[in-house]
Amino acid sequence: MKKPDFSKLVRKNIRHLKPYNAADIRCAVKLDANESPYSFCLKNGALDMIASAALNRYPDPEARGLKRALARKIGLDADAILLGNGSDELIYYLTITFGGPVLYAVPTFSMYGIIAQSLGERHKGIPLDRNFDIDVDRMAEHIKKFRPGLIFLSSPNNPTGNCFSTDRILRIIEMASGIVVLDEAYQPFSSRRGFLSLLKDYKHLAILRTLSKIGLAALRVGYMVADKALLMEVNKVRLPYNLNALSQTVAVEALRGSFLRDVTANIVAARDQLYEAMSSIPEVHPYPSEANFIFFKVRDADAVHEKMLSQGVLVKNMNRAVKGALRVTVGTPEENEKFMRALKKAMGGK
Amino acid sequence: MKKPDFSKLVRKNIRHLKPYNAADIRCAVKLDANESPYSFCLKNGALDMIASAALNRYPDPEARGLKRALARKIGLDADAILLGNGSDELIYYLTITFGGPVLYAVPTFSMYGIIAQSLGERHKGIPLDRNFDIDVDRMAEHIKKFRPGLIFLSSPNNPTGNCFSTDRILRIIEMASGIVVLDEAYQPFSSRRGFLSLLKDYKHLAILRTLSKIGLAALRVGYMVADKALLMEVNKVRLPYNLNALSQTVAVEALRGSFLRDVTANIVAARDQLYEAMSSIPEVHPYPSEANFIFFKVRDADAVHEKMLSQGVLVKNMNRAVKGALRVTVGTPEENEKFMRALKKAMGGK
Repeated sequence: MKKPDFSKLVRKNIRHLKPYNAADIRCAVKLDANESPYSFCLKNGALDMIASAALNRYPDPEARGLKRALARKIGLDADAILLGNGSDELIYYLTITFGGPVLYAVPTFSMYGIIAQSLGERHKGIPLDRNFDIDVDRMAEHIKKFRPGLIFLSSPNNPTGNCFSTDRILRIIEMASGIVVLDEAYQPFSSRRGFLSLLKDYKHLAILRTLSKIGLAALRVGYMVADKALLMEVNKVRLPYNLNALSQTVAVEALRGSFLRDVTANIVAARDQLYEAMSSIPEVHPYPSEANFIFFKVRDADAVHEKMLSQGVLVKNMNRAVKGALRVTVGTPEENEKFMRALKKAMGGK
Repeated sequence: MKKPDFSKLVRKNIRHLKPYNAADIRCAVKLDANESPYSFCLKNGALDMIASAALNRYPDPEARGLKRALARKIGLDADAILLGNGSDELIYYLTITFGGPVLYAVPTFSMYGIIAQSLGERHKGIPLDRNFDIDVDRMAEHIKKFRPGLIFLSSPNNPTGNCFSTDRILRIIEMASGIVVLDEAYQPFSSRRGFLSLLKDYKHLAILRTLSKIGLAALRVGYMVADKALLMEVNKVRLPYNLNALSQTVAVEALRGSFLRDVTANIVAARDQLYEAMSSIPEVHPYPSEANFIFFKVRDADAVHEKMLSQGVLVKNMNRAVKGALRVTVGTPEENEKFMRALKKAMGGK
């Protein structure tokens, strides 16, 4: 029997990589994954479509119906859109197409770095400044020196919840030698307008959006908006049937009504209330948020995380990325109340 | 306005790559994509599950229910299985993990080469011998010289329809310096047993399977069976939520009954009838098939393809890969009859 030594067979960059830890902790109040607390319910018409779907046939490789629905939503042409099985698939495709070095600001969404590492591309996270804004000078230095093929900026940023300042984003776009990707996964929760309007001026800009945060995480639908020439290049490396037929059908259905929009408005209102409530707890330091979660600091994040979990409330422990930090997703009013009670208790209150 | 020169920004290996041509030709009788002609229909219980699914939550990243269902089907442990959003996603992950050079026998499934090219890995197709079997000597030569990181063998092979001989497959496995991937997408239609039983002896062997050919192409569910150590490496580069929740639910449901198995038996019987019928047409040369399609040669494949299309019957034109070749997927008895009529007419018969 052959006993292969996988440590030699796998590529060097893979050897020390750990699989992404999609934590699977069962918990009554799940506020760790930036999901919407409200589930869209399929109506009879949509269920009939699914019941009679030709499951034996490959899905539409161009997902034309879904592209049209998204195009209507954002007010652009359907051919300005490329679809991914989640926007993380699009990050893979972007990195495959344009290569590294990959630059981003940290702390941020971990997949930019993980995917670059998977693909053996150099990658670097430049720390945000003390206001969690882009450190433009250090970014500029790095761009000049290493000429990154890709720069990822998540705004609103996960996990910090703030938008980067527009002038700094623009400066990065102006000075970039490669492609700039603005990840607007949390844009629907922001008071700012987002950057779609920049696309006509910057052909090396791509914007990522997703349906995962606004209520359809189960479907895995992410999309990229960019100039056709850019999309055409990325489309070359896309798997032809990357979006299954059921997700296409259900997403079109969910985009039809006002449910997703209404729910988003509810979450924004609940977030602002939650922020006020959290601010009133001594030694809890929440940061203003433009997203569907709140980033906050306590003295001992590990202990608070653990104590809340024992009360059935799961938040995301960010202590390893930022000392003392936790991140709570905005839930239903009931969930937010339970979270507040658990947090107060964990902080040693009544 | 910046006008980037994408021909310089994209990686060299992408520049001349063309996107995979997932032809979208509307046709009454669609026999070009190796789909099952029979669609599984969701029953009320499954529809209720979908109607009440938490679409707002991320899918189970480990797809445990589906892994268990597949494990039962193949008689192995659930942790011997890694799931992909179609087995082409697993080909991507394998190529990312182990790297090239990538070796395969041609003609075969085009994605081995396309994905290697996308990832900038060297790749080489060694022509099959005149019986469409592996040319072991030329393969051996190449393996010695280039020490490929990955060897892909599709058996039954697409598009030729035959199984490679077992002793040649074994010789390749024995001499390989890297990973050998046996793609058994069409195994359910074969009279041979398949190679799952080899996995315990060869830790550098991976077997690909899919639900796409047996009736669930819409879902995009492929899977890899291999030793845990191998799967663990590939799992590092897998996107954590690569399989959406609806496909997980529906696939489990479809695997529960005997529908997929029954339908497969029907297709095999229809294939053998179709082969006999095709053999009776002068100047049509079908090859024996262990898959759900029949590879055949005519004098002028382009013309025959075109003439059949004008009669509403779509087959796959393989003329560019193998001169004079076409591939027809086995359809329902009615579809096969229409195909036969169209083929006879295209060949200049009555």
